[in-house]
Amino acid sequence: MADKKEACGIFGIYGDSDAVHKAYFALHSLQHRGQESAGIAASDGETIHCYTGMGQVSRVFREGRGILERLNNPIAIGHVRYSTSGSSHLSNAQPFIGEYSRGQVAVAHNGNLINASLLRDEYEAYGHIFKSSNDTEIILHLMAKPTHLTKPDPLGHVLNHLQGSYSLVFLFSDRIEAARDPYGIRPLCIGRTVNGSYCVASETCALDAIAAEYIRDVEPGEIVTLDQKGLSSRFFVTPGTVIPAHCIFEHVYFAKQSSSIFGENVHQVRVRCGRRLAIEHPVEADVVIPVPDSGTSAAIGYANESGIPFDMGFVRSHYVGRTFISPSQHMRDIAVKLKLAVVRQVVEGKRVIVVDDSIVRGTTTKGKIKSLREAGAKEIHMRVGCPPVKCPCFYGVDFPTREELLANQVNSMEEIRQYLQVDTLGYISLEGLLNCASLPADHYCHACWSGQYKIPVSTVVNKFSMERHQKRLFDGIET
Amino acid sequence: MADKKEACGIFGIYGDSDAVHKAYFALHSLQHRGQESAGIAASDGETIHCYTGMGQVSRVFREGRGILERLNNPIAIGHVRYSTSGSSHLSNAQPFIGEYSRGQVAVAHNGNLINASLLRDEYEAYGHIFKSSNDTEIILHLMAKPTHLTKPDPLGHVLNHLQGSYSLVFLFSDRIEAARDPYGIRPLCIGRTVNGSYCVASETCALDAIAAEYIRDVEPGEIVTLDQKGLSSRFFVTPGTVIPAHCIFEHVYFAKQSSSIFGENVHQVRVRCGRRLAIEHPVEADVVIPVPDSGTSAAIGYANESGIPFDMGFVRSHYVGRTFISPSQHMRDIAVKLKLAVVRQVVEGKRVIVVDDSIVRGTTTKGKIKSLREAGAKEIHMRVGCPPVKCPCFYGVDFPTREELLANQVNSMEEIRQYLQVDTLGYISLEGLLNCASLPADHYCHACWSGQYKIPVSTVVNKFSMERHQKRLFDGIET
Amino acid sequence: MADKKEACGIFGIYGDSDAVHKAYFALHSLQHRGQESAGIAASDGETIHCYTGMGQVSRVFREGRGILERLNNPIAIGHVRYSTSGSSHLSNAQPFIGEYSRGQVAVAHNGNLINASLLRDEYEAYGHIFKSSNDTEIILHLMAKPTHLTKPDPLGHVLNHLQGSYSLVFLFSDRIEAARDPYGIRPLCIGRTVNGSYCVASETCALDAIAAEYIRDVEPGEIVTLDQKGLSSRFFVTPGTVIPAHCIFEHVYFAKQSSSIFGENVHQVRVRCGRRLAIEHPVEADVVIPVPDSGTSAAIGYANESGIPFDMGFVRSHYVGRTFISPSQHMRDIAVKLKLAVVRQVVEGKRVIVVDDSIVRGTTTKGKIKSLREAGAKEIHMRVGCPPVKCPCFYGVDFPTREELLANQVNSMEEIRQYLQVDTLGYISLEGLLNCASLPADHYCHACWSGQYKIPVSTVVNKFSMERHQKRLFDGIET
Amino acid sequence: MADKKEACGIFGIYGDSDAVHKAYFALHSLQHRGQESAGIAASDGETIHCYTGMGQVSRVFREGRGILERLNNPIAIGHVRYSTSGSSHLSNAQPFIGEYSRGQVAVAHNGNLINASLLRDEYEAYGHIFKSSNDTEIILHLMAKPTHLTKPDPLGHVLNHLQGSYSLVFLFSDRIEAARDPYGIRPLCIGRTVNGSYCVASETCALDAIAAEYIRDVEPGEIVTLDQKGLSSRFFVTPGTVIPAHCIFEHVYFAKQSSSIFGENVHQVRVRCGRRLAIEHPVEADVVIPVPDSGTSAAIGYANESGIPFDMGFVRSHYVGRTFISPSQHMRDIAVKLKLAVVRQVVEGKRVIVVDDSIVRGTTTKGKIKSLREAGAKEIHMRVGCPPVKCPCFYGVDFPTREELLANQVNSMEEIRQYLQVDTLGYISLEGLLNCASLPADHYCHACWSGQYKIPVSTVVNKFSMERHQKRLFDGIET
Repeated sequence: MADKKEACGIFGIYGDSDAVHKAYFALHSLQHRGQESAGIAASDGETIHCYTGMGQVSRVFREGRGILERLNNPIAIGHVRYSTSGSSHLSNAQPFIGEYSRGQVAVAHNGNLINASLLRDEYEAYGHIFKSSNDTEIILHLMAKPTHLTKPDPLGHVLNHLQGSYSLVFLFSDRIEAARDPYGIRPLCIGRTVNGSYCVASETCALDAIAAEYIRDVEPGEIVTLDQKGLSSRFFVTPGTVIPAHCIFEHVYFAKQSSSIFGENVHQVRVRCGRRLAIEHPVEADVVIPVPDSGTSAAIGYANESGIPFDMGFVRSHYVGRTFISPSQHMRDIAVKLKLAVVRQVVEGKRVIVVDDSIVRGTTTKGKIKSLREAGAKEIHMRVGCPPVKCPCFYGVDFPTREELLANQVNSMEEIRQYLQVDTLGYISLEGLLNCASLPADHYCHACWSGQYKIPVSTVVNKFSMERHQKRLFDGIET
Repeated sequence: MADKKEACGIFGIYGDSDAVHKAYFALHSLQHRGQESAGIAASDGETIHCYTGMGQVSRVFREGRGILERLNNPIAIGHVRYSTSGSSHLSNAQPFIGEYSRGQVAVAHNGNLINASLLRDEYEAYGHIFKSSNDTEIILHLMAKPTHLTKPDPLGHVLNHLQGSYSLVFLFSDRIEAARDPYGIRPLCIGRTVNGSYCVASETCALDAIAAEYIRDVEPGEIVTLDQKGLSSRFFVTPGTVIPAHCIFEHVYFAKQSSSIFGENVHQVRVRCGRRLAIEHPVEADVVIPVPDSGTSAAIGYANESGIPFDMGFVRSHYVGRTFISPSQHMRDIAVKLKLAVVRQVVEGKRVIVVDDSIVRGTTTKGKIKSLREAGAKEIHMRVGCPPVKCPCFYGVDFPTREELLANQVNSMEEIRQYLQVDTLGYISLEGLLNCASLPADHYCHACWSGQYKIPVSTVVNKFSMERHQKRLFDGIET
Repeated sequence: MADKKEACGIFGIYGDSDAVHKAYFALHSLQHRGQESAGIAASDGETIHCYTGMGQVSRVFREGRGILERLNNPIAIGHVRYSTSGSSHLSNAQPFIGEYSRGQVAVAHNGNLINASLLRDEYEAYGHIFKSSNDTEIILHLMAKPTHLTKPDPLGHVLNHLQGSYSLVFLFSDRIEAARDPYGIRPLCIGRTVNGSYCVASETCALDAIAAEYIRDVEPGEIVTLDQKGLSSRFFVTPGTVIPAHCIFEHVYFAKQSSSIFGENVHQVRVRCGRRLAIEHPVEADVVIPVPDSGTSAAIGYANESGIPFDMGFVRSHYVGRTFISPSQHMRDIAVKLKLAVVRQVVEGKRVIVVDDSIVRGTTTKGKIKSLREAGAKEIHMRVGCPPVKCPCFYGVDFPTREELLANQVNSMEEIRQYLQVDTLGYISLEGLLNCASLPADHYCHACWSGQYKIPVSTVVNKFSMERHQKRLFDGIET
Repeated sequence: MADKKEACGIFGIYGDSDAVHKAYFALHSLQHRGQESAGIAASDGETIHCYTGMGQVSRVFREGRGILERLNNPIAIGHVRYSTSGSSHLSNAQPFIGEYSRGQVAVAHNGNLINASLLRDEYEAYGHIFKSSNDTEIILHLMAKPTHLTKPDPLGHVLNHLQGSYSLVFLFSDRIEAARDPYGIRPLCIGRTVNGSYCVASETCALDAIAAEYIRDVEPGEIVTLDQKGLSSRFFVTPGTVIPAHCIFEHVYFAKQSSSIFGENVHQVRVRCGRRLAIEHPVEADVVIPVPDSGTSAAIGYANESGIPFDMGFVRSHYVGRTFISPSQHMRDIAVKLKLAVVRQVVEGKRVIVVDDSIVRGTTTKGKIKSLREAGAKEIHMRVGCPPVKCPCFYGVDFPTREELLANQVNSMEEIRQYLQVDTLGYISLEGLLNCASLPADHYCHACWSGQYKIPVSTVVNKFSMERHQKRLFDGIET
């Protein structure tokens, strides 16, 4: 969806005296999944209060404003949202809160609904009012529909209407319900804190952050309930009837190295990718260096497999936030260099293997290669931990347009190599990548490389019709 | 309604190349009607954009943020909201914007709907989702109802469902519609700018601010449309079938002295009140001084009628915003003095008549009297331009609770006089006040003094049930 | 001096447990004397701490930052600085603090030293370093000079080197010393708080604000010391040897109406000016209206003397802070109107006398007259409470350049009248003005009208050489 | 010095059309040397303008405020200041600017003058005024002294009065002069930009950031001048007469890995330290992990030397700014974990060698060890790239007090090991560390480990007397 909330992070916790602070810390640890906006909704058992704001968690809930203190209640959910270029709408920040006949409800969503526009048109015809341009709001409208409320499992009934990817956390005044789409496209796991309260999170790193124990993943097609009886579960899709479509790009790019998703540790998968790269694309060289920090795991794997020494050719600055927009191109080039400084002595006169996790547009990669050349690297061999991205994602990854994708701008590996000005270039093969993960190859979605979409793309037309709504509402921009 | 949006200010303008800047200036001139939040929604003919924020107009749209520039379009409405003690919710700021089957709509509301809660319960039962705690949102839900959309005049049909006070400005993508409740409780007037575009505003001072000519008031029960055909009108209540109930407190307190409302100038009504006071409550004295600026008009009237010289006993500071909260009571007393400095030489050894427009709680009045005594006033005679407020308002004035009203805390005029520590005390009579305005006495609402409610109060129970909703939603507090 | 700190406000208090809060409130009440910057320095008896910032007092010391709490000590001085167009330098904010061989000292200055540049050149030749562009810093350098320190009264010795106007408050770690130049050009008074501590302030309104009793003025050529022995006094110029030169413009324009300066109440002097105007420039008319609030006192005087009714033709907005800079001239005209709304019914079809305290540039006056015409005034008679300003002030009033002064742009009253587009125009005569104040006419400085400078202007050349320094230092601008 | 400006970063550039933007980017790349305040002073050839502010470079000069644009001139210097706990004074921010008989001068200083207080007392006796509590201000006073101005090389003459460490950049209106103390304690290098202008910087990473070529270091005891004739040099101490005392802690801790200082690359020195550690403190283990990013270089060295695989056991968060202060200890522990997440799969059941560059207080190290234990590490072997810090630094490193230093709180390595709860503990030896750097061992200062001070410590008493001044001045705190 143009709204691009793809790799958001979500969290929920029930019955913890420190619930709101834990949500704060959990969102902090999930910050890599989205920096555009952050929000927390909390219930005292009867009333839900919600606070959302633009920017990173530490800014939205910055000390001295008393927001966490005012939210302080034992049931809480939270959300961090992906940062997109262009306009950022406060009205799209989550959790999304509303009131219907059963009282208040708040929801946090990670994923992308491809039939949102279709459903929205339908509900507007029923007389419903929409307040935002995001595809999450339609879920609340489905939940409020009187005929849905009489079903044996109203929430399960509603989820069956949704097409696309969704890991969802709902906050009702007295409980949390968390659900994952039948394909398990985005991750969602369950943990238990030291004082016995249950929580759910996009990645296990959020459990680590609050010293919670990992219990298990929420299963595809499952709804788990966190309430005063503890943890309970039900399925809205018969288990085993759908082959999963876990987004393999989560392993390659989105998830934090310390997290485990889809049953295994992200860092280890990436190290295996590095090893596989060394086998698929060997080259004689003096040193293996990562593009930090995204390429570090794969570079370690490559170095270990190849026996070529690992070293630190780039130093990443910890102080680069927004850089000043300089009037001249020369000055803009400088701004880029501030983020990654080259250790000249590591690369000067050397044959250097550079490892990164992925190449999307290619422009920043090209800049980094240029820095290495200027520092005197004799040969540069680029190795990439995932295949060339060629196709759009309809399930929540915000790739550039087909036109902007480097792999679509050129006709061959050779052209990419020339564009990047490297001596050799090697991408891991799709087969190789799938081998690095432990589940059967057909349990992952890899449409962005293969073009094989597991959810029928005929509905995708609706994706674009949603843009009609998205252009419209503009509410409370913070600049 | 607990939500207290009583004396808000609204504005709308169609087809002006400077529409958004004019809305900005018009809201600025209506700032006395509300400082809690401000907002503008504007349409380019197809899409509506909206921006709202907490605080005064000049802060919300402060220069350098580019907000007016981004909103810049030829059709615009705006709103300023009354500042209440306690929590201020960004989600309650207006214009309120939503999307329904007919596209986008934004609304700005001045008034109070006493059947909002009743309607909200009904629409929640239909499956509707509410995003705010204010009573304005229900209007959009009524408008979106499919059966309403098929009526000959859907908007007029909807307005007939509403009970209470409402001056409303609707922004559709291609037009503005403005309406006033059948009793004409709150003011709303029509103007025309120098370049011929039509506009509507709560008070004529907004027309003056943008150099627009006053055309006429929107009539009670009338809807006017501002679109490319110019100005057109229709009635949703048969004209002449309802006796008006103009809020006389608008003349006494809310409206700006330079405005004309309900057919006459506010300053002149207040001068007449001062004259009447001099007749009803004469006293021998040396000087007449106003509590500036609210009491200035009445003081001029009193001085002119009595022949006792008018003078400036208090100087109002232009720099007192929020004063620092001092730890000691002594320091807090000082803070109060900063707002009104006494000109000792005007009152020392004199018999002083002090004129103010109204006394509500009485605490600040008492402080001012004390300052005069300390400056050496020999006698102090308090004269008040409206009768003692005794009853709650259900149509949009945010009085304190019955318990906090000074006139309810004491049993007699004598007790009030002793509390304020003045030598004599005189309130204008209700009859006298009504004589100072030009319309027949039964064309005004004076329930706050008389307890005679023109709209049946049986529905008022719903007012309190609305508090159920109001306690709940908490979204985007700015502190 | 180009630095333009002319009508600043100063305050000092010794030995009060609430000294810093009282300084805060006193500065608040002196805010009309300067809004560019504010600062407070306080001593615990050994160490001085100082905080200065750009903007109004309530902004600089806004709640929640804990500044007053951290400064909290029993000896304090404060300063508010005149707002000038163009650049505002934090390094010029006062109190100005430094350390020399006798320890720390802080100083707050109201006035203008005309030999500052001469002295600065001399001290730079001694090897001194200057940190600011204002003329106050030189005073500290004179105080630090070793040969000055051995004099019987080092401070009195230093003050004898200064030429120009100065009301000064010095904070030493254990005492306050306050001094006034031998001509008594700027005001400075002494008060005593309810708990017996002494204080000094630019105007008596600051004493009123903190409930302090007025004791007397600091005499021209006097130094008063506030320390643990109470109040003591000495003279650095033999009393009676210099004829005073009190700035009459303080009465006309700078000081607050509730203050008493140079021995009498400001409001009353202005009322007398109004009466005198009615005698010097009578005219048949229907109503007398002030330009609020500056012209209110004189308008009351004019109305009382002439017998023509006083009324409120303009309503001043309390919400106009910085107005948005609009792209078009038409919109800028609107912005001006927001500050003063015309009460049409007061002036329509009437012969109106408009009274203001002064006309400097004339542009804003012209705008106000235009508003009255548009509202239908039949005749407009402008009356001004001071003569036309024709000459520059070297003692601390920041007039526009000679070229910008309206009275210098035209050759005759008739030309001014035509420029303002009024039917008749009357300025009070200089003789008339001086008669409205109680001291002998030669006890006032009126050089801005008469060109008669009481301090020899040969030294004035240095004024302009100071600009060399003023252009240079740029430190810590806040925007 | 209590003022703790130890590891500041300085920069200067002459004759570049982009001088101010280059200063901005250079300071950005030196941000690791100080985050408390930042400032830039620039000259147009005649007048110097200066802007300083609290916080990081990107905040002080954040876009939209137009500061860089207003400073824009071809000669510029800049400074970033070390962040200390406790109070931060804007009056101490640099560049420090003043005016004396030769005109304006601004200075940026990295280092610590141990005779500053002695000199300040002397100059106060001459009648000088000081405006700040930092030791840099005295340099300007020495420069302004008339007898110094007549010397053949006034600046060289002045520098000979200074004792302690200093790398200095002076901005005069028409040139830059840069100097380094005779011991060369802090680094300072010279570069040339692509358009031929010369610049000086604390570290070569600043040259890399602006694409400038490294020319050479400023020599100990040398002054270099950057003016329209290009680069020229002179010595104020006869070269070769003083044995250098380069701060070896710059290599261990302060400098960026990509920089070269004292003639060699920082990363490479640290890698060698890691190798040396593996020789001095071998142990059987499964994996070597760094504490990122400070320990990464040494960990690579240790892994390479020992043959034990390098891996990533910690993942550093890029989003942790200020963390929220939680009410409970449990929550505070969580906050620490957010900065470094453990990759459980890398350490679980393993014998882990953890490498860091230094241990100062020991508390955060202890927390990291605890995280590893909780993640299931079987054995933990701590290796540290520098010896235990035992003595205070008088030349500019801000160590904790002797009492807070871990190595002084315990009596033996064994006690430190027990405190940290590691299985084995190994610090590199001082001899080993000095061997890892290329210059002769006696060319470095290692007093913090050895207690051997190269500049006589008798003057150090003055260091503490300076605190008298430092307590006093408090000006313009930003909170």
